[in-house]
Amino acid sequence: MTANNVFYAQSGGATAVINSSACGLIETARKHKDRIGKVYAGQNGILGALRENLIDTSLETEEAIAALRHTPASAFGSCRYRLKDLTVDDSQYRRLIEVFKAHDIRYFFYNGGGDSQDTSHKVSLLSQQLGYPLTCIGIPKTVDNDLPATDNSPGFGSVAKYVAVSTKEAALDIASMCATSTKIFILEVMGRHSGWIAAAAGLAAEQPDDAPHIILFPEIPFEYEKFLIKVDQAVKNHGYCVIVTSEGIRNTEGRFVHEVGITDAFGHEQLGGVAPILARLIKQKHGYKYHWAVADYLQRAARHLASQTDVDQAYALGQAAIEYALKGENNVMLTIKREPGEDYRWSIGTAPLSEVANIEAKIPRDFISEDGFGITEACRRYLQPLIYGEAYPPYENGMPKYVRLKNILAEKKLNKVFEDV
Amino acid sequence: MTANNVFYAQSGGATAVINSSACGLIETARKHKDRIGKVYAGQNGILGALRENLIDTSLETEEAIAALRHTPASAFGSCRYRLKDLTVDDSQYRRLIEVFKAHDIRYFFYNGGGDSQDTSHKVSLLSQQLGYPLTCIGIPKTVDNDLPATDNSPGFGSVAKYVAVSTKEAALDIASMCATSTKIFILEVMGRHSGWIAAAAGLAAEQPDDAPHIILFPEIPFEYEKFLIKVDQAVKNHGYCVIVTSEGIRNTEGRFVHEVGITDAFGHEQLGGVAPILARLIKQKHGYKYHWAVADYLQRAARHLASQTDVDQAYALGQAAIEYALKGENNVMLTIKREPGEDYRWSIGTAPLSEVANIEAKIPRDFISEDGFGITEACRRYLQPLIYGEAYPPYENGMPKYVRLKNILAEKKLNKVFEDV
Repeated sequence: MTANNVFYAQSGGATAVINSSACGLIETARKHKDRIGKVYAGQNGILGALRENLIDTSLETEEAIAALRHTPASAFGSCRYRLKDLTVDDSQYRRLIEVFKAHDIRYFFYNGGGDSQDTSHKVSLLSQQLGYPLTCIGIPKTVDNDLPATDNSPGFGSVAKYVAVSTKEAALDIASMCATSTKIFILEVMGRHSGWIAAAAGLAAEQPDDAPHIILFPEIPFEYEKFLIKVDQAVKNHGYCVIVTSEGIRNTEGRFVHEVGITDAFGHEQLGGVAPILARLIKQKHGYKYHWAVADYLQRAARHLASQTDVDQAYALGQAAIEYALKGENNVMLTIKREPGEDYRWSIGTAPLSEVANIEAKIPRDFISEDGFGITEACRRYLQPLIYGEAYPPYENGMPKYVRLKNILAEKKLNKVFEDV
Repeated sequence: MTANNVFYAQSGGATAVINSSACGLIETARKHKDRIGKVYAGQNGILGALRENLIDTSLETEEAIAALRHTPASAFGSCRYRLKDLTVDDSQYRRLIEVFKAHDIRYFFYNGGGDSQDTSHKVSLLSQQLGYPLTCIGIPKTVDNDLPATDNSPGFGSVAKYVAVSTKEAALDIASMCATSTKIFILEVMGRHSGWIAAAAGLAAEQPDDAPHIILFPEIPFEYEKFLIKVDQAVKNHGYCVIVTSEGIRNTEGRFVHEVGITDAFGHEQLGGVAPILARLIKQKHGYKYHWAVADYLQRAARHLASQTDVDQAYALGQAAIEYALKGENNVMLTIKREPGEDYRWSIGTAPLSEVANIEAKIPRDFISEDGFGITEACRRYLQPLIYGEAYPPYENGMPKYVRLKNILAEKKLNKVFEDV
């Protein structure tokens, strides 16, 4: 049996655990030298294939590859790049196949969100059409947790843990201060279209009355009068109010609050960030002193507080990508399946790429409390196991030891430079 | 020998380790039952004494007190409250002594920053004047690291670790993304008057060329043209630019940038936050896509990433407060002394309260690089040991197990309510 090569690429926003998938994939490939040759990683995702910039991972030591398991972000570089519409112009897809042929690549693993699954699907279709044998498997990844078919997406569990823990800590802080000072704390988290990350803040509330007192979801139209009443109630009942907002909350007309502000009176140009807008709204109405934080990259890169469940799942998916490919699976995205029962157990499944491409899984309405400002017990039961376990990186001199790979490019085999990117 | 009681209070902004000082103090007091009676904690700092709201810590279990060591924020409530000027009106100080007398309190420990040391000093003066025997010892605490006489202040080491680690993680994230997307990341950290916290971000740069590429200090007047050139250089050299800014940077006229913006053109009312102002400035000049984060409470409450050195020092100071008081020390603030030598070793010293009250220790100019945008090796040598060690809290169900005390108030002994607060 010939040992064919692999192309693996990381796409879209980085996460704390996507390199754990890379680690699982490369380590497993190295165990199957009879059937798997080199693992080439795309430099900056799919662009690496289009430009024939293929990182030769065989030049990395075992230790370096092992360290990917505890290193955040995308070690080979990622991209925000959408291939052209296959039905209009298939030149980019043809180029991919050409590069794969030139480097004897018969396995295509794309590690990303909805767009990446769509790309994988199209690459799979074209390779079939051109008669080039290529195994295409999508590896899920997104902090937004909005991929269909899978119980959850790697990357989300660690953001969820970061947001839940940070909310709990900030809540203790404001509880200390509220007697004479700050009474409002607002944390803005990621989520332009789905409120999964904001929902995770609800895990900070372990006792009745615990913060957060208000969670704002993109799925629930933001009504500022209702919100202001709820804020005031929280301050009156608890002495302070902790609010966690998705960046993507929209007003009742469906427009982003961070773009248009709250009302005409507040509606001049903002510098981005919904947290400061809410803070000012509350200050103007109730006069309460506020603090606000915007977690931004900190939340999705926070490998120092990664969920062990998340790291394990990411690794297992990378491992399964190789194993399933060798078993003949093709044109699928790998999924996490939650097993039935009281205790949390999971396994790996598959879903046809055709069924996952370009579908966004929103947070179910029954995961959000009736008044739209919190999560339900069903949501808590779903979320809690995703943050189980603490997967700490090793430290040296007080700093985590994250690896930086050599990322040496393989020699190009095609003469022409592909300009159409 | 009689066993007299203790008054302990926490003041000002919360930190990740101030409760570790409380833990050290209470655990040590409990070991000296022959000489120390009850430890009363002020409910909301000094206000607890003024209002005779004394938390009876003897009603807390050993386990609960032990858990203070890993619980962030101020477990007894803090306050932002300055006593009146002693020379103008000494009624509040007299009230304190009255409350202390009524509850047989002969030890006064105030855990806070510069203001608190000033208060301790004045309480000490008045008790002497009134002939009431009271031992007054200040326990340092401030994330700003701006107390004089001590090598560093508990609370700072953990913020420093949080900021250094977060900067490193976010830098890996943007390095992944910069080829096709975001090129600028700005992290805003605390520090209105001193740049210690921003300086700590410099620890993220372990290799030449590592982020952060620019650090902005309150000590260095902000010149936006120079800044914009430096940003562009970083993007051209590294593909991206990571900036860590103190919240308190000022323009060349000495005004806060977050209040007045950058120039007239940018100078309309802002919602707070210097990060978004810098982001827009860069966007307008260079067109680079940006992300920004404001860490706010998250940084100072982040017990999940506390420095072991910081936790140990905070605990040791609480312990020493009791031991030094029993040895007869009075009217001093405890300090951390750095021992000479290559390896980091520290011990506990004292400084007269009269010499520490109302003095702010600024970051030395030779800790900031010549161009004003980074830290020097001397600064790195000073900072590095303060973040040594990872003092993780225990977890359950994926969340840290932080304690919430019962905080039961002792019965009041004074008839009159003190209104003058």
